[in-house]
Amino acid sequence: MLSSGSLDDAVGSKLFFKCENLQRVAAFKARGACNAVLSLSAEEAKRGVVTHSSGNHGAALAWAARLRGIPAWIVMPSNAAQVKLDAVKGFGGTARFCEPTVAAREATCAAVEAETGATLIHPYNDWRVIAGQGTAALELLEDEPDLDAVIAPVGGGGLLSGTAIVAKGIRPSIKVYGAEPAGADDAYRSLRAGRIIPQTDPRTIADGLRSSLGDKTFAVLSTSVDAIETASEEAIVRAMRLLWEKLKMIVEPSSAVPLAVLLERKISLDGLRVGVILSGGNVDLDHLPWQT
Amino acid sequence: MLSSGSLDDAVGSKLFFKCENLQRVAAFKARGACNAVLSLSAEEAKRGVVTHSSGNHGAALAWAARLRGIPAWIVMPSNAAQVKLDAVKGFGGTARFCEPTVAAREATCAAVEAETGATLIHPYNDWRVIAGQGTAALELLEDEPDLDAVIAPVGGGGLLSGTAIVAKGIRPSIKVYGAEPAGADDAYRSLRAGRIIPQTDPRTIADGLRSSLGDKTFAVLSTSVDAIETASEEAIVRAMRLLWEKLKMIVEPSSAVPLAVLLERKISLDGLRVGVILSGGNVDLDHLPWQT
Repeated sequence: MLSSGSLDDAVGSKLFFKCENLQRVAAFKARGACNAVLSLSAEEAKRGVVTHSSGNHGAALAWAARLRGIPAWIVMPSNAAQVKLDAVKGFGGTARFCEPTVAAREATCAAVEAETGATLIHPYNDWRVIAGQGTAALELLEDEPDLDAVIAPVGGGGLLSGTAIVAKGIRPSIKVYGAEPAGADDAYRSLRAGRIIPQTDPRTIADGLRSSLGDKTFAVLSTSVDAIETASEEAIVRAMRLLWEKLKMIVEPSSAVPLAVLLERKISLDGLRVGVILSGGNVDLDHLPWQT
Repeated sequence: MLSSGSLDDAVGSKLFFKCENLQRVAAFKARGACNAVLSLSAEEAKRGVVTHSSGNHGAALAWAARLRGIPAWIVMPSNAAQVKLDAVKGFGGTARFCEPTVAAREATCAAVEAETGATLIHPYNDWRVIAGQGTAALELLEDEPDLDAVIAPVGGGGLLSGTAIVAKGIRPSIKVYGAEPAGADDAYRSLRAGRIIPQTDPRTIADGLRSSLGDKTFAVLSTSVDAIETASEEAIVRAMRLLWEKLKMIVEPSSAVPLAVLLERKISLDGLRVGVILSGGNVDLDHLPWQT
């Protein structure tokens, strides 16, 4: 956990940053994948796991499967970046390619399940995954028990669901906020509408936050989160650069969305003690957002 | 302190990184400046401190002076970068400009001393500063008492002198190494020659390591350091990028020189436990060395 006087001054709160960029596979996704893989029975485990993800969850599942010594199939679009493919292979996972559509992705997953008997581990709409992601907030509150609020980014909602369940369970008075890019604000809109509104055309550099909610994460967020607020792309880039400059931490754009919301003063947290989850640190060092 | 399995694999040793990029003013320089300022008598302190440095020591001295509530004059060349000037001013220091020559710098320092009675705090050739820099190794050995070796970058030699005195004092069997850019290898040449050979035309991106040794640091390094090894510019850039990618830490080029020496296998440390001091994290995010 890190803090920074100048970031505190910039937002008017006392911030406690939980650095999931220093986690295994450089993302909180290691927590959920690990919990899901270790929750399998010996019989299930033997047949392996499968998921669809070209992002951090794919690498995390490959890593967790190797930890248990079982196979992992990661379904990826045929146009996935080489660096993402390398990450999956580097952890011993087997990549399976499909067309870059939701239908093709789900069909390919189903085919791997049928072929191998592998268990599908969804990136976020899975209770084992949600429980695992919640351990970041568990550690945050172990270190700083008297937080007034905690804020985490929201994409599919796995991290925010786990965070809300843990934080409200341990400390009922705590406020829990989700931070979402304005250009992929399906969770914000879904909570207002009272039903899942899928994200159709996400436009944000926060590449970890482009997914739609699932039924499980929607149910948790609807009951346990105080508010979801959105941040502009400009604020996300500014927040990311501030985190690099002030914390000396390499974080990916998705990690910067909570600070972006705080910088834009979307929530009134003046003078309060706020836990901020920095979700991950996988970023292309050849293409930084403030250089384009 | 951080470690990384993939960096261990890359060099064949078990590495323990002391992250001085997370230190105040984002550099180990805060330690020496703080010790020097807090060592002054009340009478001396009242009159303030002065130094010549356009780099981390200038910012660190301004910060340390503010901590004690005393004035700090920082002599900087008239062509110093705006960001460095802002850092000094941000910590409440007063910048004094001079022509960018050694003679002008020393004359301006002497003028400030005469005018104000301020105490000169040299960036490295000062026992109070050397003692302060040694506390990084003190903490490193508190956390990992059974290190076989420790390696630190060498510019003027303040950090390496403090490191050697502390490490050999606590653990006489430990090996202490200095890492220097091949393009600014005056310490390497000085130790071989048995006399100080000033650095005349440094050519390295490691901007913290362009200084010459002083008589105090030369004396310590001559008796207490096992070897100084040099790294190529190519290896320094590669090491810096590896630290960003694997540790998710923003470090400046000077910080990467020890890892560069290890990557080039200039010292045989196979299978040993090695402390590596990452000296600082002040870097221009608009101009990264692998992008030029």
